[in-house]
Amino acid sequence: MQGELKIQETTQRKPKPDTANLSFGVYMTDHMFTMDYKKGEGWHDAKIVPYGPIPMDPAAKVFHYGQTIFEGMKAYMGEDGDIRLFRPEKNFERFNRSCRRMSIPEIDESFVLQALKELIKLDRSWVPSAPGTSLYIRPFAIATENHLGANPSLSYKMMIILSPVGAYYAEGLNPVRIHVETRDVRAVAGGVGEAKTAGNYAASMQAQENAYGAGYSQVLWLDGVHRKYVEEVGSMNVFFRIGDRIVTPSLSGSILNGITRDSSIQMLRDFGFEVEERPVTIDELSAFAEDGTLLEAFGTGTAAVVSPIGEIGWNGKTFKIGGGETGEWTRRLYDELTALQRGDIEDRFGWTEVICSAETTQG
Amino acid sequence: MQGELKIQETTQRKPKPDTANLSFGVYMTDHMFTMDYKKGEGWHDAKIVPYGPIPMDPAAKVFHYGQTIFEGMKAYMGEDGDIRLFRPEKNFERFNRSCRRMSIPEIDESFVLQALKELIKLDRSWVPSAPGTSLYIRPFAIATENHLGANPSLSYKMMIILSPVGAYYAEGLNPVRIHVETRDVRAVAGGVGEAKTAGNYAASMQAQENAYGAGYSQVLWLDGVHRKYVEEVGSMNVFFRIGDRIVTPSLSGSILNGITRDSSIQMLRDFGFEVEERPVTIDELSAFAEDGTLLEAFGTGTAAVVSPIGEIGWNGKTFKIGGGETGEWTRRLYDELTALQRGDIEDRFGWTEVICSAETTQG
Repeated sequence: MQGELKIQETTQRKPKPDTANLSFGVYMTDHMFTMDYKKGEGWHDAKIVPYGPIPMDPAAKVFHYGQTIFEGMKAYMGEDGDIRLFRPEKNFERFNRSCRRMSIPEIDESFVLQALKELIKLDRSWVPSAPGTSLYIRPFAIATENHLGANPSLSYKMMIILSPVGAYYAEGLNPVRIHVETRDVRAVAGGVGEAKTAGNYAASMQAQENAYGAGYSQVLWLDGVHRKYVEEVGSMNVFFRIGDRIVTPSLSGSILNGITRDSSIQMLRDFGFEVEERPVTIDELSAFAEDGTLLEAFGTGTAAVVSPIGEIGWNGKTFKIGGGETGEWTRRLYDELTALQRGDIEDRFGWTEVICSAETTQG
Repeated sequence: MQGELKIQETTQRKPKPDTANLSFGVYMTDHMFTMDYKKGEGWHDAKIVPYGPIPMDPAAKVFHYGQTIFEGMKAYMGEDGDIRLFRPEKNFERFNRSCRRMSIPEIDESFVLQALKELIKLDRSWVPSAPGTSLYIRPFAIATENHLGANPSLSYKMMIILSPVGAYYAEGLNPVRIHVETRDVRAVAGGVGEAKTAGNYAASMQAQENAYGAGYSQVLWLDGVHRKYVEEVGSMNVFFRIGDRIVTPSLSGSILNGITRDSSIQMLRDFGFEVEERPVTIDELSAFAEDGTLLEAFGTGTAAVVSPIGEIGWNGKTFKIGGGETGEWTRRLYDELTALQRGDIEDRFGWTEVICSAETTQG
């Protein structure tokens, strides 16, 4: 179907950014992967080429009807100098789940994962190694048919671009203040909240901007039907430590099935903690905060990995969590998960895969 | 702010398509309008240039976070050979309402409307005149900042492209069969259903494809909270004639505030018919169909103008409307509204504006 992977290497490597000031998603590496789809022909013309602009017809469906999906994943270089991927097959599985929801043709997961490995090898000198840094990987697909009609496109482009990144939140592991959104809704059951598609993010920006304006870092999203069940924080899944249990919203159909969420649940259980996946209401959390049993809260996602929550603002009230400090369990999860991702501790879960050994990396 | 409009005329006009086979949104005219936005600088570099591809960075936010909005409107050439716009100021008002919801900077409505008129004048030879045909106008804005971060873009491109179109539905004014969607949700109150933004259309494609597969032309959307209130049909507003009243869903926050909807309400009232805007449940419609009082149903939108509905499929049952024929009131609305748009009858509402008179059009 997509045939052989062609590689066209750049003749002019770009200067690398200062790894102390990487920020997030600003710098792109020297190469990118692209593959095209045409109805009747399938995915074809898979190639790695120098990073650069793509010509788009103004009538391309992605601009008008939003048929697009993406993934977010990372490659890490730890103390041993090896470059590792973290559960990449889970991202490509989810890529295809998102494809199905958005009527985009599925990709050959193992072919594209292999192409990603080739791409990273070619741009291995871009993988930063300082603590908190990594190579962010963005696979995505866009509808390219030039036709003003709101039905699925007959052609698509799938790409992977790479960006060396620092910590997602400049605040680092400092707990953030989050604002419970009571007007806007990010996603609803039956909608596309489970798919990693552009529209979910566009829908969230107004509330996010309002939260910033009111001095908060993130939005805590409630469900769109009852407006009381907690769903996500910003674009992360959310966890609460209530006494000696950890609670995270169950996947309701409007919550993204996060790979860091899943990894966190497994790791927390491995630590010996009890983790419950169940519906959680904001009233409940407010009551637990009041009686002193809401001890910790954090978001999980590929970008930030684990992001502690220190305070929640809701309908004019605020409640502090864990005295506004990063909780003990939150820190332990962050430390172990990031150490495992970087290869600094043993991978007892089998989640990581070395794709470039230190010798080839430095070569 | 955006300065003067620059015009760069093409040196090579494209051949025109056969007006008998225009289809919808397939052919683009010779020119397009573009204007750029940069934070701190505002909208600038407004120009009309030859139609062609735009170079896009693969990290442009529109591809990843879906920050994009659009409008749909038409220019008509009727029996007198004049070219008319239909309530264009309403489209640009809504463009800016959509901008606000999607955190996109607003445009200067009168400047852009003036630019649209210049664009149409330049491409006036593309405006078809056969009954059912028109020049479809697609203003849109996309986020262009190259940054993988889900916050509002710091740069945007606003464009207008033009496409000579035939009837939106190949079926013409033949009544279509529609399918009540009970699993997927198009939009929910608090979401972005009121904004004309790409994500709403992407979210609707799966259900639309399933409806096609089951032999239906369109989806009838229910609300996302109670799953019983009728919202839209396909991407149109929906009207029902129940006895001697016309009922259309009230704007709930998740329904697009259609300009053809508003025009239809005004025109139907002008005919002397009673029009109610109120919540309408699917159970109610089913009961009215059963007792014989559901006499007509139709969708309204810029593309199709008025589209009669002959049959509704819901949970395995089907009910015919008006014996499956186009209703008398539906046909009268279609005939008068399209005649008014084309300038074939007097415009007693003041909705149309001649932007090219017959002499300049044929010149």
